[in-house]
Amino acid sequence: MAVNLPALPELHPVAGIRLGTTAAGIRKPGRLDLVVLECATGSNVAAVFTKNKFCAAPVIVARAHLARRTPRALVINTGFANAGTGKPGLADARATCQVLAEQLGCRPDEVLPFSTGVIGERFPLDRLTAGIPAAVSCLSDVGWVDAAHGIMTTDTAAKGASRQIRIGKETVTITGITKGAGMIRPDMATMLAFIATDARIAPALLKKSLAAAADASFNRISVDGDSSTNDACVLVASGKGAAIKAGSKSYKIFQEALLEVCRTLAQAIVRDGEGATKFITVDVVRGASESDCLEIAYTIAHSPLVKTAFFASDPNWGRILAAVGRAPVRKLDVHKLSIHLNDVCIVRGGALAPDYTEARGAAVMREAEITIRVDLALGKAAGRIWTTDLSHDYVRINAEYRS
Amino acid sequence: MAVNLPALPELHPVAGIRLGTTAAGIRKPGRLDLVVLECATGSNVAAVFTKNKFCAAPVIVARAHLARRTPRALVINTGFANAGTGKPGLADARATCQVLAEQLGCRPDEVLPFSTGVIGERFPLDRLTAGIPAAVSCLSDVGWVDAAHGIMTTDTAAKGASRQIRIGKETVTITGITKGAGMIRPDMATMLAFIATDARIAPALLKKSLAAAADASFNRISVDGDSSTNDACVLVASGKGAAIKAGSKSYKIFQEALLEVCRTLAQAIVRDGEGATKFITVDVVRGASESDCLEIAYTIAHSPLVKTAFFASDPNWGRILAAVGRAPVRKLDVHKLSIHLNDVCIVRGGALAPDYTEARGAAVMREAEITIRVDLALGKAAGRIWTTDLSHDYVRINAEYRS
Repeated sequence: MAVNLPALPELHPVAGIRLGTTAAGIRKPGRLDLVVLECATGSNVAAVFTKNKFCAAPVIVARAHLARRTPRALVINTGFANAGTGKPGLADARATCQVLAEQLGCRPDEVLPFSTGVIGERFPLDRLTAGIPAAVSCLSDVGWVDAAHGIMTTDTAAKGASRQIRIGKETVTITGITKGAGMIRPDMATMLAFIATDARIAPALLKKSLAAAADASFNRISVDGDSSTNDACVLVASGKGAAIKAGSKSYKIFQEALLEVCRTLAQAIVRDGEGATKFITVDVVRGASESDCLEIAYTIAHSPLVKTAFFASDPNWGRILAAVGRAPVRKLDVHKLSIHLNDVCIVRGGALAPDYTEARGAAVMREAEITIRVDLALGKAAGRIWTTDLSHDYVRINAEYRS
Repeated sequence: MAVNLPALPELHPVAGIRLGTTAAGIRKPGRLDLVVLECATGSNVAAVFTKNKFCAAPVIVARAHLARRTPRALVINTGFANAGTGKPGLADARATCQVLAEQLGCRPDEVLPFSTGVIGERFPLDRLTAGIPAAVSCLSDVGWVDAAHGIMTTDTAAKGASRQIRIGKETVTITGITKGAGMIRPDMATMLAFIATDARIAPALLKKSLAAAADASFNRISVDGDSSTNDACVLVASGKGAAIKAGSKSYKIFQEALLEVCRTLAQAIVRDGEGATKFITVDVVRGASESDCLEIAYTIAHSPLVKTAFFASDPNWGRILAAVGRAPVRKLDVHKLSIHLNDVCIVRGGALAPDYTEARGAAVMREAEITIRVDLALGKAAGRIWTTDLSHDYVRINAEYRS
């Protein structure tokens, strides 16, 4: 069902980063479900986590470890999210770190744990920890593809992106993998993304860099407006390659490439959204402020009526108009507003465009990729997000998920 | 598909109020689609309208007329919402008022127009105005049942409520009708409710009375979080009966009965919500503030994942927990929180209740009426709303609506 989801591209190895993946039988036998990512000494790590107040045990532990130490390794399991599991869940997350730390010869608080899967049930700690030596034994710098498969839950395909840029005479690599799908399936808890680069970047700059890239990519996607208990995005800089300094031209080049990787990963999540039949870009332009533009974009993206109309390929512009009208923004002049679907103008001056025909609307709605462009004609700000339609399959998948 | 929607009860006539309904063939022939409600001289009228910035032409006209004069009549059509129709739409709404005013011998701005139906297309003004004499000719104080049918769009049944109370030695009647479904089908634009009483109430008190009752009823329902371009709720007090004074015991009795009528009508809209298979009450108690409680209640009610779980009768408490966790509230202590489904405790102290069993959860989820009770253990405030599940039929109805 994925919408134009590209096949997994070549994932360039990142010097200083090794990955190992195994089938530990955590929830189902014979399925890659446990990933270890090892960072060379001297790496720096930045991460952003879910803002959900019910964050999962691994999020709590990872946040605490990250605040205390520079991580040496990440451990990621699927099958169980370890969320809503109380104190025993916290102990399980810490025990996982302990076992991996023993294997790698580092401290337990130099390990960050991540989990994704069913909420509210504890994972089988014995099976998980028994799998760790196997994952460690296959650590390799070409382990990205297996890892991309090892973090999948209900994703229909593995997702990754990789870019190489020139910084002076050196080649810098940025490689990342992700799984769906954040706001798409919070109880399959989770959007996870793991990105690594061999660039040498100071911790503060790395944090800033990730925050900016995540904000313009992972924080700009929505399938159903739900956010999960386990969402996390991690960026590791191993420091084996070129140095990136704040304010430099190199930083600009690096940031652009990082954003490209993040955006490709984020869009892959949407393309593989549950039941998705359309990939929709919502572009709100010429607004009074970026936050107003984003509010309008999200109100459109979250409207079940807009989403079902797109599923039906129905150019039901009244639903888009009604969504814009109820968005919680300060300034809106309905008489100035225009709306395009790709290059077809459907609303001009707040009413149906005189040159609009149902035939043109129907033609554009049949496409798999559609941009809704809302022009507010108020100012210079803009906001862009990506979303999907709402299909029968979304309901089926989410109604049947646990059975 | 409606969930325990009661049959239309006896709708007591209200002295001073007459209704006439006809089949004007506005969109489809042979269907009651035009209603006139006439108020006796001396009536007072209060109304609340949609907050959507793209409000429909009749809403703009009704607001303006109400601000200028005390209305003598309402005119309501189905088939077309007269929204997104620009200046011609405003002219159509005013022309409708003009024609009815001529029939009744009043001023055009003493008439309030209401429309519901498809957005973005003008209605056939000639057919609508041609129907007005027929509606006027059958004006009667027992016209409530026909009117309840005449304002229906995709509702599966007519909806009404009626109460009689004693004020001193007099009987005061409150009778109302409504149609779905506000936040349910904004592009079939509209929740409309028309309520009348024979009580004698001053304009300011009537306004206050309606605002309070609507806030605790029509503003507490949600099916998909969308609000429409045409929503309106009108309360007419004909003044033929007992006087109701501010601060009196009578006012308290009256207000209670009005709230009961409004709540019955609002719940009827939810029970007849698109594709509804469950009637869900979300009760958030012991919060720090009412607004926090309502934010949490709405976040639960709008979560597609919670809604699909209810459709599947799946006691997926992790989804409810995740929704609570991402609600935009100031204060939340996840370790104090408990959640019940009817009398089954599913979460206690922020984690799965130790005495919870899937069998008990499954049993309660099979019921058609379920209360989700979230106890925040933080304060004394509370908030209650009503909503439905999200079913295959919701998607089918909204994907196929225009075709």
